[in-house]
Amino acid sequence: MGMGTAGTSGGAVEGEKAALMAAIGPDLAAIEQAMHDDLAMFAGETDALLAEVLRYGLFNGGKRIRPLLTLLCCRLCGGRNIEVASLAIAFEYLHCATLFHDDVIDKAVTRRGRSAVNVAYSETAAILAGDFLHARSMLLIGRGGGIPALEIFCQATTAMVDGEFLQLHNASNNNLAEGEYFAVIMGKTARLIGAACEIGALFAGADSAARQALCNYGLRLGCAFQIIDDLLDYLGDEASTGKSVGNDFREGKMTLPLIIAISRAEDKDRERLLTMLSSVEERNSGFAEAKGLIARYDGFALSRQKAETIIGEALGQLHIFDQAEILQEKAVLAGLADYVLNRNK
Amino acid sequence: MGMGTAGTSGGAVEGEKAALMAAIGPDLAAIEQAMHDDLAMFAGETDALLAEVLRYGLFNGGKRIRPLLTLLCCRLCGGRNIEVASLAIAFEYLHCATLFHDDVIDKAVTRRGRSAVNVAYSETAAILAGDFLHARSMLLIGRGGGIPALEIFCQATTAMVDGEFLQLHNASNNNLAEGEYFAVIMGKTARLIGAACEIGALFAGADSAARQALCNYGLRLGCAFQIIDDLLDYLGDEASTGKSVGNDFREGKMTLPLIIAISRAEDKDRERLLTMLSSVEERNSGFAEAKGLIARYDGFALSRQKAETIIGEALGQLHIFDQAEILQEKAVLAGLADYVLNRNK
Repeated sequence: MGMGTAGTSGGAVEGEKAALMAAIGPDLAAIEQAMHDDLAMFAGETDALLAEVLRYGLFNGGKRIRPLLTLLCCRLCGGRNIEVASLAIAFEYLHCATLFHDDVIDKAVTRRGRSAVNVAYSETAAILAGDFLHARSMLLIGRGGGIPALEIFCQATTAMVDGEFLQLHNASNNNLAEGEYFAVIMGKTARLIGAACEIGALFAGADSAARQALCNYGLRLGCAFQIIDDLLDYLGDEASTGKSVGNDFREGKMTLPLIIAISRAEDKDRERLLTMLSSVEERNSGFAEAKGLIARYDGFALSRQKAETIIGEALGQLHIFDQAEILQEKAVLAGLADYVLNRNK
Repeated sequence: MGMGTAGTSGGAVEGEKAALMAAIGPDLAAIEQAMHDDLAMFAGETDALLAEVLRYGLFNGGKRIRPLLTLLCCRLCGGRNIEVASLAIAFEYLHCATLFHDDVIDKAVTRRGRSAVNVAYSETAAILAGDFLHARSMLLIGRGGGIPALEIFCQATTAMVDGEFLQLHNASNNNLAEGEYFAVIMGKTARLIGAACEIGALFAGADSAARQALCNYGLRLGCAFQIIDDLLDYLGDEASTGKSVGNDFREGKMTLPLIIAISRAEDKDRERLLTMLSSVEERNSGFAEAKGLIARYDGFALSRQKAETIIGEALGQLHIFDQAEILQEKAVLAGLADYVLNRNK
């Protein structure tokens, strides 16, 4: 597997992806197993419907990137204790809890091509099951990683809420600066991914330089992940993403391509974009026009460039890990960075 | 102050209440201070709107019974460390998080005589602020009490969700047994109060007998508290409770007075109650009639008797605490038990 040159394309990407999937297969299996084991442990003591909702919401075809990062970063720092999986799944629990609550907030109907929990069951079930996973995730982190891990985890969690609030404000601010966008995606997405990496290192007993490097890697991976996610909301292929495009524009969400276009557009086009954003009707009908205007001012290309730069910085964090016995883990982390850039769903 | 003879009434109650309030005044002040200090600590780092929502939702005239119990139980076990307040407030945080989410679930408009968070701000704000408090509470518990405290706290939290799910089921079961009602209120209310007491003891370094006794005291106090709450939903004075009566019946919620009445009623009256419960219209219009039927079969009197018995059991747990220097704390815990029975709001 290559070291993840940003921007690789075509057949090479497919080959790298296959190699990456083969390399992470055993880890993904260990994560699924740990989740099933944990669910079996508490399912006997909880309400049957709650267990059903959790099973439905957790085994949803998720990519398990967060717990995977915990496993990889733990091994990268020399940790060989398999027990890390039962701590790592806390990141998937918290992620899913966030999805449950987000889908209630957004009144989402589908998630990954099937009914969202709030629709398949109820809003009540989605809120409560999210709360359950929230509590369970904290317990697993505390048990597995002690108070230092709990501190990191809780700071990431509160940052997520903070990021969501920031996004609420920003939705009514059509002259958003890039810095404000990055503050939102740091809180909403990157902090938890940074925490997943850092706690893996912590579990392995890594020194603070290694912990910080992996936290930085995760933060950058998370930011790039979110930028690409926001790009796919404009440019994605609905068939492969399983998501409809144009949601962010319809909701007036200020993501990077739009922010860049507004900052670079000529007066007339800027006015046009701002007018569209200020009207629910125009946002609903004007997606194609907005997409055209964003493309005219390189909003998509420059966003992608930004993601590539950030992924380059993420890869830069891995340089200190150079022992022969961890080259495989290092290659997978590099491959994941590459995957984030080249994913189409 | 008396030792809380169940059922005391009239002027004696007012006198005892005044003595109780005087005894707990300094503790309540310490709790408010700890909450303000904590909020000030994180308000600088969080979104301004989030901080505003938290301030609105937390300083809501709540009675602070849960953190108060932590402080009292800590001192009852010989703990004199004032730092317990910064751990105790986690119970108020979690309680408030639950209220935020419950009000979203129930589409409640008011809480304690003013707009609920979901109305004063938004459902989104209520869900997210609840999540924030949830995470913050876990962090405070872990920091102050270590992993053993986190275990107790998380088990109570997950039990709360479990109790809510159980209640969802029970809402469609008009032939509920008392045991199922108690399973709901244990999870929904009593477990967290038991945990507040137990963690206070744990913080003081109490032995397992003392921890268990105070956990049992808290569980019983919580059960009685909920029974009285459910009674007030039928018999309360709207002016003093600040809550409208009849909500539980309108929602078809099977609480103890109704369960007892259905189990004791003659066929004709039982059929009538079940018919009313099965129709939204009848539930909306038939509160007075239902109240009359419940009274006819002593549903209210027997519920109250049950609460009195349980409070007696709670007081029984305090017998092992007999050192002279903790008589004040013991008297306050007994007074709180008495207060739970005699409160009218």
